[in-house]
Amino acid sequence: MNINKVIRKNIASLSAYQAKDIPCKVKLDANESPFGFRITEKIIQSIQTNRYPDPEAKALKEAIAKDLKIRPENILQGNGSDELIYYLITTFGGPVLYPVPTFSMYGIIAHAIDEKSIPVPLDHAFDLDLNRILLEIRKNKPKLIFLSSPNNPTGNCFSADRILKIIEAAAKTSIVVLDEAYQPYASDRGLIPMLRDYEHLVIMRTLSKIGLAGLRVGFLIAREEIICEVNKVRLPFNLNSFSQAVALEAMKNKILQRQNTQTIISERGRLFRELSMIEGIQPYPSEANFILFRVAEPDRVYENLLKKGVLVRNMKGVVDGCLRVTVGTPEENMIFLQALKLIMRFK
Amino acid sequence: MNINKVIRKNIASLSAYQAKDIPCKVKLDANESPFGFRITEKIIQSIQTNRYPDPEAKALKEAIAKDLKIRPENILQGNGSDELIYYLITTFGGPVLYPVPTFSMYGIIAHAIDEKSIPVPLDHAFDLDLNRILLEIRKNKPKLIFLSSPNNPTGNCFSADRILKIIEAAAKTSIVVLDEAYQPYASDRGLIPMLRDYEHLVIMRTLSKIGLAGLRVGFLIAREEIICEVNKVRLPFNLNSFSQAVALEAMKNKILQRQNTQTIISERGRLFRELSMIEGIQPYPSEANFILFRVAEPDRVYENLLKKGVLVRNMKGVVDGCLRVTVGTPEENMIFLQALKLIMRFK
Repeated sequence: MNINKVIRKNIASLSAYQAKDIPCKVKLDANESPFGFRITEKIIQSIQTNRYPDPEAKALKEAIAKDLKIRPENILQGNGSDELIYYLITTFGGPVLYPVPTFSMYGIIAHAIDEKSIPVPLDHAFDLDLNRILLEIRKNKPKLIFLSSPNNPTGNCFSADRILKIIEAAAKTSIVVLDEAYQPYASDRGLIPMLRDYEHLVIMRTLSKIGLAGLRVGFLIAREEIICEVNKVRLPFNLNSFSQAVALEAMKNKILQRQNTQTIISERGRLFRELSMIEGIQPYPSEANFILFRVAEPDRVYENLLKKGVLVRNMKGVVDGCLRVTVGTPEENMIFLQALKLIMRFK
Repeated sequence: MNINKVIRKNIASLSAYQAKDIPCKVKLDANESPFGFRITEKIIQSIQTNRYPDPEAKALKEAIAKDLKIRPENILQGNGSDELIYYLITTFGGPVLYPVPTFSMYGIIAHAIDEKSIPVPLDHAFDLDLNRILLEIRKNKPKLIFLSSPNNPTGNCFSADRILKIIEAAAKTSIVVLDEAYQPYASDRGLIPMLRDYEHLVIMRTLSKIGLAGLRVGFLIAREEIICEVNKVRLPFNLNSFSQAVALEAMKNKILQRQNTQTIISERGRLFRELSMIEGIQPYPSEANFILFRVAEPDRVYENLLKKGVLVRNMKGVVDGCLRVTVGTPEENMIFLQALKLIMRFK
């Protein structure tokens, strides 16, 4: 059998997502929190491995709702945001509009599901190109618009007034998804209050950036009518028993969570100042738990950091000339900075 | 905004999967194993919640490969079989052919992804209607054929020669997926050896029926070329750290696994004999961990069992006139049988 005759054409031209496992001592490449959550014996004993998970993730949704002062009916749980992007595109179809550079999965998943993408370059300040996006909305009527703010990999929040204008312009044609994965590290409080005014708005959140990447828990927040539609394409047991139990317990420990977030924000400030002082390094301001920085020889610097055991992300092909470093523990950041200073001094 | 103008038409006509949470003392409705796996402190301490899971699930795939005497490159991991069905239909498209009644997710997912279904009724003995399926293969060239053997909810294996004829007839047009979710409870050893001879064959397995439903771990076994294509649409972190760690540990404990399976097979025999002796009950022979049985007033019997705290599955609309009971522990089966005998005696 010639498999190319059987697979869908869009799949033949797709490449598998490359998530490489690169050995290192200090891992600052994946925007993970350096602070994990301690799983207690009590949590584990509450899990029956032989039973299917709660398909509604009721207890977890109630805890999230309470925390965000919304209703559980306005929440949809996902096996990470990735799965929710899959579900959104399956439900609404394309074209799918998003700025570039941004989180890569919007485009990858649209391609996998064979929906058209409309990638719109950010302006020179990494902000949304408002005119171009408004034009695309009028001309091509995207079914979905993904805006990640703070944006990965640039680190900035998009201007609130541009986001607002896009939401208003799209009111009759598109669902606007605000991906707030990095919101806990931003100076504002996010756009959840806007859900009251805009019924075509969806907010996406995740626990992956605040110490629970191993769980794969993301969620959508939207009015009930949208949640009901997307829920139709959700696999009934998409969130397993462990993720539900551990995430629920972590939700209860908000004080520790806030401390960790504060530590990372404060370290980000220090990291930014230190990077600014290194000759040849230009860091971009960040409202997330990572910093994008420009450097003359990014490949050489990346490779030399890795030789010293420090793994960052080389943004070649995404933001050429830049590397991205995740904010780690104070010790990890120190090791990174010392290594980088040495590399920049001796060429 | 009128949401019906934005969502895809096939979604508007879809209903969400109903997985109800019905309170009961003895839960025999979901084909779960009654035997759970004990999660040790050691397993848990190996998990870093703040780190993303291994996107390749390398250690787990190696353990599965060793157990089944195949290569890790021939395995694709899924967040349950459900997700793998999603990926298969996304990769190959439709029409999707399957016998009915069978596992409901083939049809539900095909509908969600807007691919055509070809449901072909089983014959009077719950076996495959060979002529009709061969005709559909010639006429409609399904891209995918799902055959669940042992079949849920009927419990029987399909005849090996009919499966073989379908595989041969489909060699130029279709991927044939043999869903062996219940294979551990069958008298044969499954069709993995046939992968050598048929390159359009995919075997699907799951850990959900052998004590690990809470983990959501399913996997495909196929030649590398097929695995590579389906892997393109897999979300990189679809299997979380807990599922990988606990499943890996459970794979190492095959002796306990085999004991549990033997207990269930032996209890299934006892349950079948006892059911056969109750007047008004006609059980169907089963090679799975459940038994389908015919009864004159299924709704009344279902409701009365539930009143006594025993939850089974009412197959109304799927196999009218039938209930399905999962094989539980010896104690659970006893409670079920006693309750059923009482209900059948007093109308």
